[in-house]
Amino acid sequence: MAVYTHLGAEDLATLIAHYDVGALLSAKGIAEGVSNSNWLVETERGRFILTMYERRIAIDDLPFFLGLLDHLSAAGCPVPRTIHDRDGRGWRTVEGKAVALIEFLPGVSVDRPTPAQARSVGEALARLHRASSDFAGTRANDLQPADWQALFERCGADLGRIDPALPALVERHMPALVERWPSDLPETVIHADLFPDNVLMIGDRVGGLIDFYFACRDLAAYDLAVTHAAWSFTNDGSRFLPEVGAALIEGYESARPLTRAERAALPLLAQGAAMRFISTRAYDWLDTPESALVTRKNPMDFARRLEFYVEAGDEAFSAGAQEGNRLAR
Amino acid sequence: MAVYTHLGAEDLATLIAHYDVGALLSAKGIAEGVSNSNWLVETERGRFILTMYERRIAIDDLPFFLGLLDHLSAAGCPVPRTIHDRDGRGWRTVEGKAVALIEFLPGVSVDRPTPAQARSVGEALARLHRASSDFAGTRANDLQPADWQALFERCGADLGRIDPALPALVERHMPALVERWPSDLPETVIHADLFPDNVLMIGDRVGGLIDFYFACRDLAAYDLAVTHAAWSFTNDGSRFLPEVGAALIEGYESARPLTRAERAALPLLAQGAAMRFISTRAYDWLDTPESALVTRKNPMDFARRLEFYVEAGDEAFSAGAQEGNRLAR
Repeated sequence: MAVYTHLGAEDLATLIAHYDVGALLSAKGIAEGVSNSNWLVETERGRFILTMYERRIAIDDLPFFLGLLDHLSAAGCPVPRTIHDRDGRGWRTVEGKAVALIEFLPGVSVDRPTPAQARSVGEALARLHRASSDFAGTRANDLQPADWQALFERCGADLGRIDPALPALVERHMPALVERWPSDLPETVIHADLFPDNVLMIGDRVGGLIDFYFACRDLAAYDLAVTHAAWSFTNDGSRFLPEVGAALIEGYESARPLTRAERAALPLLAQGAAMRFISTRAYDWLDTPESALVTRKNPMDFARRLEFYVEAGDEAFSAGAQEGNRLAR
Repeated sequence: MAVYTHLGAEDLATLIAHYDVGALLSAKGIAEGVSNSNWLVETERGRFILTMYERRIAIDDLPFFLGLLDHLSAAGCPVPRTIHDRDGRGWRTVEGKAVALIEFLPGVSVDRPTPAQARSVGEALARLHRASSDFAGTRANDLQPADWQALFERCGADLGRIDPALPALVERHMPALVERWPSDLPETVIHADLFPDNVLMIGDRVGGLIDFYFACRDLAAYDLAVTHAAWSFTNDGSRFLPEVGAALIEGYESARPLTRAERAALPLLAQGAAMRFISTRAYDWLDTPESALVTRKNPMDFARRLEFYVEAGDEAFSAGAQEGNRLAR
C-alpha cells in the first residue's frame, strides 16, 4: 500500500502522450497494491489507473495478466480493460520498470459485506471462470500446497514467535493438504485473491473485479474456496458469517453449478485456502521489520479460519450452515 | 505519504451522508501528506479530498486552517474550499480523529519548474499574501529561528552522523540567524511550505495551492524566501536555477512589490529558509528508522542551498543572477 517510485508531472505527461487519451489533467499516487505503484490519472478523455510494476511481478507474466483483462472485458466481465499505446503495446517501460495504463472503474470496497453483495460476487466469480476458460494464456499457480510447505520451512522455528500455537497447527494440517490435494477437478483461469478490497461494489452490484496479479490456471472450486475464506468471516476470522457464505455459493452456482466432486472437495479446498494465506502472511510477517510503516497482515486471522473449516467440515458449505459463534473460536 | 487509517466503504458512506454532496461513488486512498491520511472521493455531485488529521496537527488549529481556505477561496485565490456538513461544520470526528472534506482541484505538481511556471507561482503567492492580510484567524509560526536551534540541540552529536560537515555548517550560520532575524517587516498569513508538490499546475497556470498545514502569521518576505529556496534549485540543491528564481521574484512583485527593507532582507531570509528545512529534515532523518518504507528527505539538499545563499548574497535575487554552476557547489 504505497507509491514506491516518484513520477513527476513531466514524466507522467511524456508517458501519457504515448496513448490516445488526450492530455494529462491530474494525477494522484494511490495507496493500493503491495507489489506495485499506482496513480489515478485523469486526462481529457477519462480516468485511468497507471500501474508501475515494482516487485514480485515478473515482466514475463505481464502479457498473461494484461491479456486476461482484455479477454474478460471483451466477454462482458466487469474488469478494467488494458489501454494500449499508439503502437498497440499493452505496457511500456519507464525508468527500467514496466507500466500499464488500465481503465478506471467506479465503486468502493466494502468492509462488512452483506449477503446480497456476497451473492453478486459469487455470480461474478462464476462468470469470470466461464469466460476465462477459453483464454489462451497460461500461468502456473506458484502458491500450491508444496509452496506453502516451502514457505513454512523458510520460517522455521520463528513461526512460533508469531503465535505459540501456530507451529502445531501447521504441522497438524499441512501434510493432509499436500497428500490429499485434488488434481482432477475442473480447471480454468482463476483470480486466486478475490478479497473484498479487490472488488469494487456499487451498492449490491459488482462494479469491478481488480488486481489480477495472482491469476493463474488452477481449480475453479479452489478460487471459490479462497473467496469463501476471504468474505465469509469477520476480518480477524473469529466469527463465521453463515448467511454471507451461503449467499456467495448460491450466487456462484446461479452461473456455474458445482460438480458433485467440486462440492465434496470444498471443505479441503477451504482449509487449503486458509493455509495458503497463513503461509504467505507468516513469511511476510517475519520478513517485515516491526518498525516499517506497513500494516502487517496477521496470519492468525487465517489460522482461526483454518480451525473453523477443519471443525465445520461440510457444514460450512451447507445452505443451513451453523451460526459462527458456536463453531469458530 | 501514506494512508494511516483504514476507512471502509461503509464508514465512508456514513461520513459522506453528513454532507450535501450526493451518494459515494468511489474512494481511493491517496499517497499525499505526511501528517494525515487522504482519500480522493467521488460522489454524485463531484470530487473531493477527504483528509483525516493524524499527527502533528492540533485540532485547535483546524478552524484556522479550514477558515483560511474559505477566506482565500472567497477572495479569488486558487485554493480548495472547505465543504461544510449539513450542520455547517467545517470538520467532523471519525474514530476520534478530525476529518474534513475539501474541494478537489485539478492540476499536477511539476518536478522541474520552468521560469513561466515560477512566474505564475510568484504571482499567486503575492495574491495569497494580499488576500490573507485581512483574515481574522491567527496562528503563530512554531518554526522560527529559536525553534530550529532547539531541533538542532535535540539532534545533538548525531547531527554529524548525517554528514560530517553538517554540525560545523549549523554552528557557523545559526547564531547570526537568531540574532539578526528581522521583526519589522510586513506580516500577513503565509503558506510557509510552498514547495512544487503543494502547487497544482495546469500548463503554466496555477490551478491550485494546497496543503496549508504550516500556514501561520509571519513575514511575507520570508514566505517568498521559502518559495525561492524550494523552487529555484535542482532537487538536491547542487545547482541554482537563476532564471527560475528571477521569474519567481518578478511574478511576486507584479502583484505585490517588495519594500526596500524586504528586498534587503531576502538574502538573510533565504538562509533562514534553508536552515528551517535543514533543522526539520535533520530531526526527522534521525527520528526515522532506516528500514521504514518512508523516503527520508535529505537535509544536505538544503545545506547546499544555505551555502549558496551565504556565498551569493544579494546576487541570488538580482535580475541578472549568476549561473548557478559557478556559485553552487
